[in-house]
Amino acid sequence: MSNDTILYDVADSIATITLNRPDRLNAITKELEAELLNAMQTANADSSVRVIILTGAGRGFCAGADMANLGNAVETDWSQVEQAELRERLLPPRPHHDARNDFQKTYSYFPAISKPIIGAINGAAVGLGFVLPLYCDIRIASDKARFGTAFAQRGLIAEHGVSWMLPRLVGISNALDLLYSARLINADEALQMRLVSRVVPHDDLMTEVRNYAALLATTVSPRSLQVIKRQVYNALFTDLDEAIETANDEMLLSFQCEDFGEGVAHFVEKRPPNFTGR
Amino acid sequence: MSNDTILYDVADSIATITLNRPDRLNAITKELEAELLNAMQTANADSSVRVIILTGAGRGFCAGADMANLGNAVETDWSQVEQAELRERLLPPRPHHDARNDFQKTYSYFPAISKPIIGAINGAAVGLGFVLPLYCDIRIASDKARFGTAFAQRGLIAEHGVSWMLPRLVGISNALDLLYSARLINADEALQMRLVSRVVPHDDLMTEVRNYAALLATTVSPRSLQVIKRQVYNALFTDLDEAIETANDEMLLSFQCEDFGEGVAHFVEKRPPNFTGR
Amino acid sequence: MSNDTILYDVADSIATITLNRPDRLNAITKELEAELLNAMQTANADSSVRVIILTGAGRGFCAGADMANLGNAVETDWSQVEQAELRERLLPPRPHHDARNDFQKTYSYFPAISKPIIGAINGAAVGLGFVLPLYCDIRIASDKARFGTAFAQRGLIAEHGVSWMLPRLVGISNALDLLYSARLINADEALQMRLVSRVVPHDDLMTEVRNYAALLATTVSPRSLQVIKRQVYNALFTDLDEAIETANDEMLLSFQCEDFGEGVAHFVEKRPPNFTGR
Repeated sequence: MSNDTILYDVADSIATITLNRPDRLNAITKELEAELLNAMQTANADSSVRVIILTGAGRGFCAGADMANLGNAVETDWSQVEQAELRERLLPPRPHHDARNDFQKTYSYFPAISKPIIGAINGAAVGLGFVLPLYCDIRIASDKARFGTAFAQRGLIAEHGVSWMLPRLVGISNALDLLYSARLINADEALQMRLVSRVVPHDDLMTEVRNYAALLATTVSPRSLQVIKRQVYNALFTDLDEAIETANDEMLLSFQCEDFGEGVAHFVEKRPPNFTGR
Repeated sequence: MSNDTILYDVADSIATITLNRPDRLNAITKELEAELLNAMQTANADSSVRVIILTGAGRGFCAGADMANLGNAVETDWSQVEQAELRERLLPPRPHHDARNDFQKTYSYFPAISKPIIGAINGAAVGLGFVLPLYCDIRIASDKARFGTAFAQRGLIAEHGVSWMLPRLVGISNALDLLYSARLINADEALQMRLVSRVVPHDDLMTEVRNYAALLATTVSPRSLQVIKRQVYNALFTDLDEAIETANDEMLLSFQCEDFGEGVAHFVEKRPPNFTGR
Repeated sequence: MSNDTILYDVADSIATITLNRPDRLNAITKELEAELLNAMQTANADSSVRVIILTGAGRGFCAGADMANLGNAVETDWSQVEQAELRERLLPPRPHHDARNDFQKTYSYFPAISKPIIGAINGAAVGLGFVLPLYCDIRIASDKARFGTAFAQRGLIAEHGVSWMLPRLVGISNALDLLYSARLINADEALQMRLVSRVVPHDDLMTEVRNYAALLATTVSPRSLQVIKRQVYNALFTDLDEAIETANDEMLLSFQCEDFGEGVAHFVEKRPPNFTGR
């Protein structure tokens, strides 16, 4: 499946999802939002997919909300719009199955996708385009990437949970700096702030990201990846006691699975693993 | 307004508050505490002020509680003092309007001030003088700055919420290191630990801080700054779901404000913004 | 006291606890687990001990669960084992006095030990051997140290609270990277991620760690260390308001203790302190 605004490709157990409005620096429209959700759900449901890469076509990653949309927002006489209709127009619900409410919102659903999501940040990531990568598990950036929150320059606010997520990724002071000043930072400053895990030369970006994704797709248990992702994100909301109790339950369950037998066997036999995810 | 122990100055929409007992390395007395609160509340209420800078006069930032006070504390026969009177003497209540209880304490009220507060750390910041900057939004340090918790060297404990705030700024292990050892660290180590956001040559400190403050005072919406500050600090205490719901409400409100119209207009017209804060 | 699998030594108010199965890279057995707990409790109860160092004998720190145990786990027909018996076999309860439930589990009890615990990571720390150091207050590593979570390579999950603790030490993305990929990282990368506080040449490790431990043992109040450790770990689970109220109570208590008098006196008299811990 590929759509008008999203490219979707699966190879070597890796799904690559590409924001594909390069002439608009991949700015977000309602259509792109819906097709991105659809692509993530497709990758989630496909048992041949073990890892997901999210990137952008062309020279930008994502320029944020399409200015045409913002323009409409300015021209709208909001006093004439019912609050309910307003929420409807701006914030379509994103229903998900069994995940926490925290991970069922317009942009916050990535942690509810049960496979690792690696952000390959190939260029400018601004506004909503800054928010999207925060919900990826790991961000690897091209040395041409740029990051900016933009909201305070538009008279807007910390949107879609960036007020919660950003301080937990880069610390309170860096988060306030980026949100207050809305200044653009380059890839090196993003690395210093730990907004990204790694910076690589622009032309090597997809190779490096695919190499890392291949490591996850071939050397570790897909069942382990799924459980660990859920454990780490849920533990952001619980105390240590509950995280340990969950871990103890999950440990007992994992002992009864094929992947544990294979995990010990390949180690003892000094050979590459052949995990099934069962 | 300036008082005996605090200098207060407003220029170019920036309020500069200076701890002003240079002959005592700006050590904290009851009077200084009260005048500092007064200055912060004045800046908060003054609609011409968009950003606040906190710094110290002379060669130190703040040496902590004035030793005369600690001396009195040693000589006091505490067994003769009623607990209620004791709290009264040591911990005057700091009533604030609509902020969380977390931000209504002797030193923790800075996040309840609705404007960015930038700490310009010009020299030694020790004991309570170490705690004060933690409640600033961003800390920029002179290369002559020094930082130390001091408490464990006095037989004291982690005072005024430093046990909560410090691990969230520099991590659990750095916090324990600084609180356990009470060792003095220099500006470079403070930067490595992310206790400060930036270190600049001593003679450039106020110029650099004012340049950054001017960026916030002139290029972004004061209304955005106010909402974002509240969002980020409140999100330290809520789950992501609540932070997103608050953001969605705030986004709808911001669409109906002048600053949003100006935020889009100056971008489309490629000119500097002229935000009113409305 | 020293046992078959643990060496225990006290000198200069510092207890050194050494994992001592060097021919097995100090892999964890039930016996080692029990003797480690016993050693920690002995150090906790001994008023002559002010600081605890945890390290490993030989060239490794700890290789994780002994493979003999994992092998048994694979061969067991878990469907025949009652859940209650299973938990009993895998997770012996670790009863502690007055600490939070969070700190009463198989590996999470280190923060309930009322003295600083410094991890001296002398070599490979893998699997459970990766988890143990996370519950130390501060980790100092040899430049020969290596770190790996291992779980996902075995078809296992994020065990014993590592899902909670690791993101709080190194950030969400580094935690996911280490848990997903199970890749081994060297000491320098561990330092960049802040998994460790400091890296020192291998041959200097114990000297550097003992020098730091001596600083805590001789220059600060043991009573302060005890209160501060409890404050910082408890504040991970409370809001700022509660942390400040606790601090205010503890401050008033500390004013009435010998160590506060000595803390002010040695400063005024410009001499080394002589704290008693009372």
